[in-house]
Amino acid sequence: MQDIDKIEDKKAGGAGEMMVDEQGKKINLSQWISGAGPEQDIVLSNRIRLARNINKIPFPGKAKKEDLAEIVSMVKEVVSKQDDFKLFFIKIKDLPQVEKNLLVEKNLTSPAHLNKEAEAALFLNNEENISIMVNEEDHIRIQILTAGFQLEKSWKVADEIDDLLEDKLDFAFSKKIGYLSACPTNLGTGLRASVMVHLPALNVTNNIGKMLGAISQLGLVVRGIYGEGSESSGNIYQISNQITLGNSEKEIIDNLKSVTTQIIEEERNIREKLMKKQKIQVKDKIMRSYGILKYVQKIASDEAMELLSNVKLGIDMGIIDSLDSKVLSELLILIRPAHLQKSEGEELSSRERDIKRASLIRNRLTNDK
Amino acid sequence: MQDIDKIEDKKAGGAGEMMVDEQGKKINLSQWISGAGPEQDIVLSNRIRLARNINKIPFPGKAKKEDLAEIVSMVKEVVSKQDDFKLFFIKIKDLPQVEKNLLVEKNLTSPAHLNKEAEAALFLNNEENISIMVNEEDHIRIQILTAGFQLEKSWKVADEIDDLLEDKLDFAFSKKIGYLSACPTNLGTGLRASVMVHLPALNVTNNIGKMLGAISQLGLVVRGIYGEGSESSGNIYQISNQITLGNSEKEIIDNLKSVTTQIIEEERNIREKLMKKQKIQVKDKIMRSYGILKYVQKIASDEAMELLSNVKLGIDMGIIDSLDSKVLSELLILIRPAHLQKSEGEELSSRERDIKRASLIRNRLTNDK
Repeated sequence: MQDIDKIEDKKAGGAGEMMVDEQGKKINLSQWISGAGPEQDIVLSNRIRLARNINKIPFPGKAKKEDLAEIVSMVKEVVSKQDDFKLFFIKIKDLPQVEKNLLVEKNLTSPAHLNKEAEAALFLNNEENISIMVNEEDHIRIQILTAGFQLEKSWKVADEIDDLLEDKLDFAFSKKIGYLSACPTNLGTGLRASVMVHLPALNVTNNIGKMLGAISQLGLVVRGIYGEGSESSGNIYQISNQITLGNSEKEIIDNLKSVTTQIIEEERNIREKLMKKQKIQVKDKIMRSYGILKYVQKIASDEAMELLSNVKLGIDMGIIDSLDSKVLSELLILIRPAHLQKSEGEELSSRERDIKRASLIRNRLTNDK
Repeated sequence: MQDIDKIEDKKAGGAGEMMVDEQGKKINLSQWISGAGPEQDIVLSNRIRLARNINKIPFPGKAKKEDLAEIVSMVKEVVSKQDDFKLFFIKIKDLPQVEKNLLVEKNLTSPAHLNKEAEAALFLNNEENISIMVNEEDHIRIQILTAGFQLEKSWKVADEIDDLLEDKLDFAFSKKIGYLSACPTNLGTGLRASVMVHLPALNVTNNIGKMLGAISQLGLVVRGIYGEGSESSGNIYQISNQITLGNSEKEIIDNLKSVTTQIIEEERNIREKLMKKQKIQVKDKIMRSYGILKYVQKIASDEAMELLSNVKLGIDMGIIDSLDSKVLSELLILIRPAHLQKSEGEELSSRERDIKRASLIRNRLTNDK
């Protein structure tokens, strides 16, 4: 990050460019969205997040503007003086609103972060699998977000970045409880590990409720696709550790990994059974969804998610062979409001978004492979 | 019909052949199903039917077997001694069950006719637009069934055949009430004129009820697609004269023609309005239906009719240009049980029919134009 000032200038002058490809035509999608990863027929992506705070400076919710500016400088200083990771610096307040929304839709930052925009900043690599949020709920949040099921690999990267920062910064840490955080749910390790899983077969056979109940007994929590408080959409669930305190990072990751492995197995078993016992019904549902999406003229987000979920299942079960499995990950981002708006280049009404969403899906399904 | 005995022998030996094309691959479809006709965007077909009975012989419901056999001979004699119409003779009882059902599904005969099979017979031309049922409810029923809206042309053919028969046969006729018939609803002219109309726009805007109410005030009756007592399916309605007595044939046909012309105009107006005011909604419904039918794996008859109706509307409104408008007329016959069975060549369960129906529709929509 030797060119930090240059890069920062560039952002200030036209932050949007970074989301556009070289020809300025396509929206840039993060590695976790359009890249490949292990077990991607079920695990869309995995995420490791570490919450850290600087000693003796109030948490962002209570800190003064100068304190927050100081935090940004401190992190920037450390990041610029290392060569292991090539990270760009983004000042949130310099971004046009649509760019901010794009970052949220790609899970690279949070609405809370955008709201504290005075001194909010983001460090991001080109592949968009590493992000460091500065002055969100905590002073520092390191996030590694990659495609498929590779929690340990992601953890390794997060840990390296954590070491790198901790080497130069004085993190708030108590011998008794570990890392301090703005919200007690992050105390201790400050670690939130999560996987985003696609479970259509468990859902269609009504086994999902039982499974989710079991999960909460194991110290894990299940959320919808868009995080806390959101409903599941497109049979996609986020599973993460509930407790950050009292277990080591390894224990937390191992637990999530082991439970996810069982869920993968269960989902695959049910898929196999469905193909044996209800082949025509399953194939019919999948192919109808595919047919609708290939010709749809307007579609709301929820219905699109449901049909795309069916199409992904079809790809992963070998029923549809003309499409790539990543189509769901890609489209679940591309059909969100800011992405639709970005690709259109102007403010869209809800009705216009439904039309644009339909055209985008039609094109994506037609132009694959 | 000089070769009547030869033809009859052929039928007895393999009546089914007549329903199969020269390559033995395709089911033969009547002219009214796959042919072209005026106003075919709305009027699928038109039908003229004349009920006639031979004087001094009881109606088929009360007649002895010998009487019925006599009727068949009489009609056969007349038909064989004319050169204007090339008609084949079919003895209903010689047909395999599936062939009988095919005839019913193509509206060339009726279930009632099949049930009286001892001496029931049918004269049919190669295009299947002329049929003479012998010993159905009446001794003789002349039926002209052609594509589109051409009632007068159809009437002309029916009238010619009627004259031809009447010239040699002694029809039961009273100066006061006209032609006698087994059921009082056919007394007088013995004429039933009808049109089969596709009214999706009137239906979707809920104007259909009002229109159907008005129709019954005009001496007309509306039925579903499969005749008396049947529900409308696929937005298709049969409109015919209720009264056969007290009006001339010309008056009956003129009345039906005039009302149908108004309905056509109204349907076209509403289609135009829909395209102006709800273009995207209409296009979306049509294209989704098209997409589903192109990929469907199993489908029940009612749903198929509904989606095909949308597709036909799309073709007729210029939204779908890769298909021919006759696709609905063709498929509404081809997806019926006996036709599905015939094209498969074996007895099918309801589930198997749904699968076969889906595959037939998929292929038909893919192989057009």
